[in-house]
Amino acid sequence: MTDPAKSVPTLTLEEKASLTSGLNFWFTKPVSRVGIPSIMLTDGPHGIRKQTEGGDHLGLTDSVPATCFPPAVAMGCSFDPELLEQVGVALGVEARAAQVSVLLGPGINIKRSPLCGRNFEYLSEDPLLSGALGAALVRGIQSQGVGASLKHFAANNQETDRMRVSADIDPRPLREIYLRGFQRVVEDAQPWTVMCSYNRINGVYSSQNRWLLTDVLRGEWGFGGLVVSDWGAVSDRVAALKAGLDLEMPSTGGRTDQEIVDAVKAGSLDESVVDVAAGRVVDLVGKAVVDPDDVFDADEHHALARRVAAECVVLLKNDGVLPLAADTNVAVIGELARTPRYQGAGSSRINPTRLDNALDEMRALASVDVAFAPGYLDDGTTNDELRTAATDAARASEVAVVFVGVPAALESEGFDRTDLELPSEQTELLDAVIAANPNTVVVLSNGGVVRVSGFADRVPAIIEGWLLGQAGGGAIADVLFGVADPAGRLAETIPVRLEDTPSYTDFPGEHGHVRYGEGLFVGYRGVDARGTDVSFPFGHGLSYTTFDYSAVSVTVGDDVVVTMTVTNAGERSGSDVVQVYVGVPDSSVSRAPRELKGFAKVRLDAGESRQVEVPVRRADLAYWDTRVDGWVVEGGTYRVQIGASSRDIRATCTVDIDGDEVSIPLTLESSIGEILANPAAAEVLSKIFATADGAAPALDPAVLEMAASMPLERVLSFGNFGIGLEEIQQQLDVVNGKSN
Amino acid sequence: MTDPAKSVPTLTLEEKASLTSGLNFWFTKPVSRVGIPSIMLTDGPHGIRKQTEGGDHLGLTDSVPATCFPPAVAMGCSFDPELLEQVGVALGVEARAAQVSVLLGPGINIKRSPLCGRNFEYLSEDPLLSGALGAALVRGIQSQGVGASLKHFAANNQETDRMRVSADIDPRPLREIYLRGFQRVVEDAQPWTVMCSYNRINGVYSSQNRWLLTDVLRGEWGFGGLVVSDWGAVSDRVAALKAGLDLEMPSTGGRTDQEIVDAVKAGSLDESVVDVAAGRVVDLVGKAVVDPDDVFDADEHHALARRVAAECVVLLKNDGVLPLAADTNVAVIGELARTPRYQGAGSSRINPTRLDNALDEMRALASVDVAFAPGYLDDGTTNDELRTAATDAARASEVAVVFVGVPAALESEGFDRTDLELPSEQTELLDAVIAANPNTVVVLSNGGVVRVSGFADRVPAIIEGWLLGQAGGGAIADVLFGVADPAGRLAETIPVRLEDTPSYTDFPGEHGHVRYGEGLFVGYRGVDARGTDVSFPFGHGLSYTTFDYSAVSVTVGDDVVVTMTVTNAGERSGSDVVQVYVGVPDSSVSRAPRELKGFAKVRLDAGESRQVEVPVRRADLAYWDTRVDGWVVEGGTYRVQIGASSRDIRATCTVDIDGDEVSIPLTLESSIGEILANPAAAEVLSKIFATADGAAPALDPAVLEMAASMPLERVLSFGNFGIGLEEIQQQLDVVNGKSN
Repeated sequence: MTDPAKSVPTLTLEEKASLTSGLNFWFTKPVSRVGIPSIMLTDGPHGIRKQTEGGDHLGLTDSVPATCFPPAVAMGCSFDPELLEQVGVALGVEARAAQVSVLLGPGINIKRSPLCGRNFEYLSEDPLLSGALGAALVRGIQSQGVGASLKHFAANNQETDRMRVSADIDPRPLREIYLRGFQRVVEDAQPWTVMCSYNRINGVYSSQNRWLLTDVLRGEWGFGGLVVSDWGAVSDRVAALKAGLDLEMPSTGGRTDQEIVDAVKAGSLDESVVDVAAGRVVDLVGKAVVDPDDVFDADEHHALARRVAAECVVLLKNDGVLPLAADTNVAVIGELARTPRYQGAGSSRINPTRLDNALDEMRALASVDVAFAPGYLDDGTTNDELRTAATDAARASEVAVVFVGVPAALESEGFDRTDLELPSEQTELLDAVIAANPNTVVVLSNGGVVRVSGFADRVPAIIEGWLLGQAGGGAIADVLFGVADPAGRLAETIPVRLEDTPSYTDFPGEHGHVRYGEGLFVGYRGVDARGTDVSFPFGHGLSYTTFDYSAVSVTVGDDVVVTMTVTNAGERSGSDVVQVYVGVPDSSVSRAPRELKGFAKVRLDAGESRQVEVPVRRADLAYWDTRVDGWVVEGGTYRVQIGASSRDIRATCTVDIDGDEVSIPLTLESSIGEILANPAAAEVLSKIFATADGAAPALDPAVLEMAASMPLERVLSFGNFGIGLEEIQQQLDVVNGKSN
Repeated sequence: MTDPAKSVPTLTLEEKASLTSGLNFWFTKPVSRVGIPSIMLTDGPHGIRKQTEGGDHLGLTDSVPATCFPPAVAMGCSFDPELLEQVGVALGVEARAAQVSVLLGPGINIKRSPLCGRNFEYLSEDPLLSGALGAALVRGIQSQGVGASLKHFAANNQETDRMRVSADIDPRPLREIYLRGFQRVVEDAQPWTVMCSYNRINGVYSSQNRWLLTDVLRGEWGFGGLVVSDWGAVSDRVAALKAGLDLEMPSTGGRTDQEIVDAVKAGSLDESVVDVAAGRVVDLVGKAVVDPDDVFDADEHHALARRVAAECVVLLKNDGVLPLAADTNVAVIGELARTPRYQGAGSSRINPTRLDNALDEMRALASVDVAFAPGYLDDGTTNDELRTAATDAARASEVAVVFVGVPAALESEGFDRTDLELPSEQTELLDAVIAANPNTVVVLSNGGVVRVSGFADRVPAIIEGWLLGQAGGGAIADVLFGVADPAGRLAETIPVRLEDTPSYTDFPGEHGHVRYGEGLFVGYRGVDARGTDVSFPFGHGLSYTTFDYSAVSVTVGDDVVVTMTVTNAGERSGSDVVQVYVGVPDSSVSRAPRELKGFAKVRLDAGESRQVEVPVRRADLAYWDTRVDGWVVEGGTYRVQIGASSRDIRATCTVDIDGDEVSIPLTLESSIGEILANPAAAEVLSKIFATADGAAPALDPAVLEMAASMPLERVLSFGNFGIGLEEIQQQLDVVNGKSN
């Protein structure tokens, strides 16, 4: 890592301060005197939102056309880092073509609650999946000389009161769930920038959180890039600078630059802190590649967007009605088939280069006429006429395909949902269609999870189409007609009821605080721990073919490697996602029954077999040990499970893992049990008891057993011993030295 | 309140220090020079455990015979403060007879998890019930000139690592759940002493927690008595003294007295602090009434114990098989019918004056022979012979009554349970008996809740007999034969599975910390919030008769009074517990759907009607508001429900309650929405925006709507305004002044 401060020796204090905040809404400030140019950062992350005039962070004004790839909610379900790296490359190419130097994404916050309004911008409820996919996107984007901005760092898991709320999180969930994905992306892909979040963590704004931005991000993880604020996330600029926030965005009209200059002059801020931040801006600007001749191929990217979308579609249920034959007599019902929802609202909203819809794409693939009835209007309302036309169409068809989803107005950055329900107009329509024709396929369009338990048992097939980007209509058609295998797997649990979600009683908090009371038990970790019924579990998704696993073995070296043979046992080619879950049944610490620790996407032709290796990094087996404030791999027996979802385990192996050395020094506060567990310390203890005078209570083995949980000092307080506490600690220190 | 320091002007520093710790295991130190005697404190709380020699806090050595009343687990189910006050009187009488000045009880800790090993010593999962019953016990005990010791203050909700673990609890659950019962007892009954708990709360030992022992207990609640340590709970004596811990127990052989003297001499401890603590000891000693002629009537107390026990028995289920006729052909099965479990192990273990068993008492009430088969041995083991004899007896009877329960070795102070299961020997026996005779009544003996979902659907009747004290066998017989109405109601939820309990994923913590992650949602509050199925809900319990409610009305004055007519609609006399639950459907803060806020026990003859008034204190409607660090009654519509359990609501009324004035000053961190909600502040805002220069972003109403959650200062950072932040705050302060 170079010293960023070395980049700025010739700049004045005012010039350096000026570099650390925006020129306007999207650009950094230049320093023309020394030839430092201004570079552009724009919103992402599933496309380029380069605004043509003015600036806002709400997706309100126009932007130049760009390919709208599937939003993160869908991409998370691809379970396919290689594919997402290609998406990243395409994003980088488009950014270059737009003269954009930093794309503000990917967003990898954990989906703590299905209600989070911005879940459509996030990948998963699981940190390993979020981290692996986020790293792939970063690699792809940055391969084109464009910076990524890993966001929102950290614990920005809701929109309610997002600019003030303190996410109150205990050390283990903070490390193991909310930071772990960020750590992976930083360590694996070194994003050029990290964007700090709006919220507080345990009371401290992320933008002013030195522990977060410096101690952890740079000190522990080795981040060498620049930290940029989320737009408007800075409360106290000088405090933020000291904490490690290099670049404040957007412009504050020079106000905060002046605060920095004033603080240096007043002696309350060391100029070297300004040097470091300004140097990082100069370094970032120096890395950016800008070439006015760059262009991108919109057709090629649209085709990629369609291919990616099919990899993200999750077939939740299929009794065999799918795929449709080209000559099936189909009635398509629902305005969403014609007017798709393909992205969410807010800063990520793309102005797409094209926009496919499922109805047209189905008609293009079908060899017979495809009937259509909108069923409801674009605004979600309906009437008897529309409903009757829909049920008539369903009745007249062999298969009804009903498109339902969450209205656009309910899913946006800036606020959270309050329930998981589809609009009642749509569910009533669906009920009527099912009554008219039970052979009904449901296609869902939604950025956040919806409750499906109201109809899942009554329809033969359900496609979870999420928000699939501008080519999603084609992908849906491809999946419906079997042109593409539905290759997505759930990156988040679909609960039976909102009340079943682990964060339910703690979301979204109140009065400026939200306690992450479910701790480690987020998403599938929670429902699996409690054995709560779910509609569809994490990792679930059907293919049009089936896969068998055989010859499963696990080897333990520096890392753990799970090897198996995957066979396409069906008649069609298709994609499988092998999921490796790990648990520690006899763990000394609280753990979910199983956690995703590795996965692999495998495409196989009918009848094809392939040996697949899924590595599990030793570091991913570690828990955060609050006693030593560090990661610890516990020694013992680990249960390694290979599954098609967290609830569909196909094979279980156990392996013994050597633990990390953890030395917890014995003290006067150590319990009798802890002392007796150490033979040398036990000897010290028996010598202490030998000094007891007659008045001391009986300290025979039976009593000691009952007193196993008592701290030594407290046991000693029950009697008079001929040895002082200091001397006892000295003797324990000798033992501590030996066992270290 | 008198000034305790006034009691000690003539004592030396050494004498004062000596008063603040024990003489030995059970006595305070005398100061003979000035005639201060030594008084005795002994374990309780459901009887007097006066040890005859030596001293331990584990219930290991003998004690003088005393009446073993039903432990708290049963008494909580009485829902009967008047009755428990009578028990308190009896305890006081027995304490006097034993020359005991302070009885170490009642224990009113909340049953956070059914696994807590000491739950049998606690009253309920609900703070109102715990507080109301605890206050009644204190009143009764203290009416006899004997001090109570309210324990374990506070948040001692588990035994695992109890002497070190930090209960990490957010302010609202700490106040509204874990301290609220203590507050009620202190304010309503002024116990002579409060016993601090072993554990830490949010990192600080209770024994050294000034916020807890002084700011809250004395400052807010007006406690005027003495704080005694749990036996061995003090880690740092001087710190504890400063925090408000007056009396350390037991003796430390003078070691910690010397520490106090040294600290005063070294100037690190103000002597006035010693004066206050010693003065409180002198005051306590002065209040104690000791008369060597005091005696108690063991027969009378045994009869009371039997009557109380019947009021605690909970009839969980009854399809009509109960009550038994005197001439029913009954087979009693299970060693527990002959060798009862009637109390738990540890410091509360009483040496009973007598001991009834259910088998003998049933035989006394029956007019025909009652067959008996032990089914399993006292140690819980069984064999084919015992099992065959049991099923043969069941087959030959009209009704089989099977006694099953938790073995004594699994329920004790000092450790927690790890599951809710009955021993498999007993459940297998039960299965065999049911197979032999489906007309099987189950009688449970258990200190902590057991899982009943394995058999509840397969038997016609279940009696939850808890631990009922020395006369419990008679009470069980009385209930079985209808001599007594089963008058108990569940003071804690019986879950379908352990995994359904709200604290499941956070119990008992690890590495010295336990996060109360379920927050407010303890017990029925949690399962009701999530709509989780339960086996039997909080408040449930059947009578042999039925009750109707009519003419329900709610009036709001200083307090809320719920009035109704209760009618015994059946053919037998019996007892009903009217339960008043309150919820605030549109609350601005997180709340359980319903919380117990009042109750009344009503005994009615067949056909009798009575108007019943249940007062609900206004203070009990308050939530703890973290913004003002105080109790606040929210204004708005309250839902008042009258129920026979938290899941059996018989009537619902709504009332409008005027809220407390809460003034939250507007600041630069107030959100746009909060500012717009105040007309005067909104005017300030529009004037600020009028000063914006041309470069400021559009701040039209639509944008403000979207920016409603943005803090003012952050909105201002997006533009240049002709007014400084300080001036804005001044203008807001004018508004704040107006609205105050």
